[in-house]
Amino acid sequence: MKILPALSLLIPVAVAIWPLPKSYTSGDTVLFIEDNVHVTYNGVSSHSILIIQKGHGTVNSTSPSTASEIVQTAIQRTYETLFSKNFIPWKFHPRNSDFEPSTENKKYITSITLTQTAADPENIFQAPVGEVDESYFLSLIESGKVTIKAKSSIGLARGLTTFTQLFFKHTEGCVYTTLAPVEISDEPKFAHRGINMDTARNYFDVDDIKRIIDAAAYNKFNRFHIHITDSQSWPLVIPSMPDLATKGAYRKDLVYTPEQVADIQRYGGLLGVQVFLEIDMPGHTSSIWFSRPELITAFNEEAWDTYAAEPPSGTLKLNSTEVYDFLDEMLDDLLPRLSPYTGYFHSGGDEVNIQAYLLDETVRSNDTAVLQPLMEKFVQRNHDQIREKGLTPIVWEEMLLTWNVSLGKDVIVQTWQSDEAVAAVTEKGYKALVGNYNYWYLDCGNGQWLDFPPSSSEKYWPYNDYCFPRHNWRVMYSYDPLHGVPPEAHHLVVGGEAHIWAEQTDPVNIDNMVWPRACAAAEVLWSGAKDETGGNRSQTEASPRLSEMRERLVARGVMAHPIQMPYCIMNGTQCGLDH
Amino acid sequence: MKILPALSLLIPVAVAIWPLPKSYTSGDTVLFIEDNVHVTYNGVSSHSILIIQKGHGTVNSTSPSTASEIVQTAIQRTYETLFSKNFIPWKFHPRNSDFEPSTENKKYITSITLTQTAADPENIFQAPVGEVDESYFLSLIESGKVTIKAKSSIGLARGLTTFTQLFFKHTEGCVYTTLAPVEISDEPKFAHRGINMDTARNYFDVDDIKRIIDAAAYNKFNRFHIHITDSQSWPLVIPSMPDLATKGAYRKDLVYTPEQVADIQRYGGLLGVQVFLEIDMPGHTSSIWFSRPELITAFNEEAWDTYAAEPPSGTLKLNSTEVYDFLDEMLDDLLPRLSPYTGYFHSGGDEVNIQAYLLDETVRSNDTAVLQPLMEKFVQRNHDQIREKGLTPIVWEEMLLTWNVSLGKDVIVQTWQSDEAVAAVTEKGYKALVGNYNYWYLDCGNGQWLDFPPSSSEKYWPYNDYCFPRHNWRVMYSYDPLHGVPPEAHHLVVGGEAHIWAEQTDPVNIDNMVWPRACAAAEVLWSGAKDETGGNRSQTEASPRLSEMRERLVARGVMAHPIQMPYCIMNGTQCGLDH
Repeated sequence: MKILPALSLLIPVAVAIWPLPKSYTSGDTVLFIEDNVHVTYNGVSSHSILIIQKGHGTVNSTSPSTASEIVQTAIQRTYETLFSKNFIPWKFHPRNSDFEPSTENKKYITSITLTQTAADPENIFQAPVGEVDESYFLSLIESGKVTIKAKSSIGLARGLTTFTQLFFKHTEGCVYTTLAPVEISDEPKFAHRGINMDTARNYFDVDDIKRIIDAAAYNKFNRFHIHITDSQSWPLVIPSMPDLATKGAYRKDLVYTPEQVADIQRYGGLLGVQVFLEIDMPGHTSSIWFSRPELITAFNEEAWDTYAAEPPSGTLKLNSTEVYDFLDEMLDDLLPRLSPYTGYFHSGGDEVNIQAYLLDETVRSNDTAVLQPLMEKFVQRNHDQIREKGLTPIVWEEMLLTWNVSLGKDVIVQTWQSDEAVAAVTEKGYKALVGNYNYWYLDCGNGQWLDFPPSSSEKYWPYNDYCFPRHNWRVMYSYDPLHGVPPEAHHLVVGGEAHIWAEQTDPVNIDNMVWPRACAAAEVLWSGAKDETGGNRSQTEASPRLSEMRERLVARGVMAHPIQMPYCIMNGTQCGLDH
Repeated sequence: MKILPALSLLIPVAVAIWPLPKSYTSGDTVLFIEDNVHVTYNGVSSHSILIIQKGHGTVNSTSPSTASEIVQTAIQRTYETLFSKNFIPWKFHPRNSDFEPSTENKKYITSITLTQTAADPENIFQAPVGEVDESYFLSLIESGKVTIKAKSSIGLARGLTTFTQLFFKHTEGCVYTTLAPVEISDEPKFAHRGINMDTARNYFDVDDIKRIIDAAAYNKFNRFHIHITDSQSWPLVIPSMPDLATKGAYRKDLVYTPEQVADIQRYGGLLGVQVFLEIDMPGHTSSIWFSRPELITAFNEEAWDTYAAEPPSGTLKLNSTEVYDFLDEMLDDLLPRLSPYTGYFHSGGDEVNIQAYLLDETVRSNDTAVLQPLMEKFVQRNHDQIREKGLTPIVWEEMLLTWNVSLGKDVIVQTWQSDEAVAAVTEKGYKALVGNYNYWYLDCGNGQWLDFPPSSSEKYWPYNDYCFPRHNWRVMYSYDPLHGVPPEAHHLVVGGEAHIWAEQTDPVNIDNMVWPRACAAAEVLWSGAKDETGGNRSQTEASPRLSEMRERLVARGVMAHPIQMPYCIMNGTQCGLDH
């Protein structure tokens, strides 16, 4: 039996758990697993679990408790992953090697015992950062007994996710591990581990979004942030204001109904991924113009770059009772429908363009001394309403760092522009999310999408999109959320998000844009950016593990791109060089 | 009726033929088309055509002539494209606009008359550059009669491809054009318009390759170059040397059999896309070591960067009778099977590493004065054998420009390193292919795939892959094959290729890596890089047309990525800026 410290370069490729567990040991005994394996949860082998494992049904939504639902979903997902969405790991062994275990005299996993040692928070779907203990302990002994213990249902789900990554499909169709005995103790470094998906620049079907959430959960992400509206389209149905989506969506039918939003939230919630929405305000709102032109100033100006970061320009008026009435009504409609499944609502606040308020008849000024009190009032009104509905606000960094809005200390501030912003937010005593666009913006690098004649200023030329070049997984992996933050403020860095903005991403290519690169962010957020020596984690160690995770994602129907050719992953570290 | 010069910025988005025809006019009369439309080819309404249009069969391979097969394939493809692989163009019209024609009192396309005015070359599948006249004339008059005239069967196929791009799917399911009357005269600028696909760094199924060829034909490419072997794998089955693939492929079953190669070649040939193979020699051959280690020197050296551009190192020995015997036998087996479907064979010749020959016991030298005569002999032997089998050699530029091999003037020299290389090749009087890696390498920009510790030299750091960054379509579109070539040598620039090397590309992401960016190369090669003023073609004009071509590719099952969000293409040129 090999004792493998988590950071050793000696980790055999086969033990390719992603993200890296806090500690584990494994051996080299082969065990097979079959779909009649006996699973118990807190001593109960429920009928519903049996129904699930035989593939006769899905999770019964009338189950007695949320914890039970989450665990049953995790068990169902474990069966699917092991028996329907698994892969033959030929790429991870030398060419034409006889790498598969003998299928004679098979020994089997005999039981899976799931033990939850504490009660879940009252409503785990809404739990704030840090209130769900996601740690787990996993033991797989050579006699075939599997034990997973956790303090929460989501901890058990995380443990089962890890469990599936011990197993491979055999060319004869059966499923095996070569790693028994295994013992793993694991817990996340950061409490908020998210992906932010833009569904406004392009529309994505509910199934596309669920596919991203499924892969996110498989990487132990626990937050899914939907940037659901923006200047280009408003796909979110607000039943009391039907024109918002009917006129503001790209097409009448490319919308998210209340039922679909709840479906997405519930889908995520059952996978331990809390889904929250962002309505970005006051900028990034020009799609409201299509139904309520009186609320928007500087709409679709020809010289859009004077008034916005990208076309079309337009922003909510900043000192308008009509805008306030609109927000009262719109958020009163929306927020109570979101709160059963999340504790958060993101009110946006990035890239506010002050020139737009020169055209706003309620303001007529681009003087920040005039604008700041109006912004303060605007944000506080939003946040009061958000809190009144039982939710905690999240805002983009500019509201604090540029506009100096006196945010409540409950607010989470999402940074994106720099590591300095993280330090500045925490210095002011606020909880911060990281996601520096030079590292964790997944959309970068496709080059300019704006159409400019060759005579245009160089700034717009093909390579010069705002965050060129593409950040490959190594760049994302080298990003330390705590960089530049003094140790006494580390606790305020509650986590971060990888971002997929959708100017050049739609359902056809989103998988490839997000995966497997977002896995790098997942590991940084779960396992931390630094190894035991305090240096960046080794890309050489991570590389074959990520290639294996990529194969697992492909096996579950996610079109993740390869990061190395088979020659490299077949041959250990031969695609590196020591000098 | 609008008269639309091909280069006008006034081209309505709906007339989005890609690549741009040499000249056309169109109107605004609506005509529908149904799958019982009467099609004749040189006056014959053949039974087989009727069978195809009713979907009861595929092309009958016992058809009387190749020309008839090509035309029948084109007709079948036209039906599939119009009625099964079409799209609703909502993205190309203002939000929520009523853009579709009324379906009351429909007028129809009444007949499609295909006239071939000259006989095809004796074996059109093998035709050398310039010997197939691909020009066509297309007329669609308001009464519903369609006439396509061409001098060759492939010209008719090109005309039918253009024809399908006049039509859209209606939400009610029918198919229409809004552009009658239409008159188009068209012909290609360059004779060799190709894609080069690497099937050695990663393996691709025959269906993956056919999908790329299908999309290539839809962009009027006429060549498909398969870089079928390389140092990482040898997937090509040579029946007289079974171990080559059995041991040299990534997996015993990840191979291309003679039947599969012929199937791919025939598939391309019937679409007017000549498929030829490359066996890259003498470098890029280390996969031969797995079956014939005695033929390879410097195999898999640890300091691979001393001996090769990427791992594993290894090259055919340069002065070995065993190597010569191997090549005699291997090419004698292979070439006669290729020649029914192509006039070309690519013998490689790029990136030969002279240090490797220090380890070659048949040479023991890195002195180019010693190596050059051996290389001369090596290449001449290959080319003699290629010619003997009725094929014309293609080589990479280094054989001429670095090694000064006295190539026959029949040889086509494929450049990749610079525009200067094109000028140098033509100055020596050779036919040149273009494809400067700073413009037309589709694999660039994913960042480093080699695993290096952070302490490595900066050269290897994440962004520094050899051709970083990613070339977006605007960069590819700005590439002029004739740049730096004096007018009197233009006729020697016979065309070019876009390249997809497969270090980070496999079947999961290849569509997205190739499309729609390769379309930019297709248009440069068909329509020329320059407009009537002699300047680069306008990206502002091309952008919405390319977005539409992208939708047509997606409709045919190709996962091409978007280049702009719907907001931009719905709104004409509002995603540009005039200053």
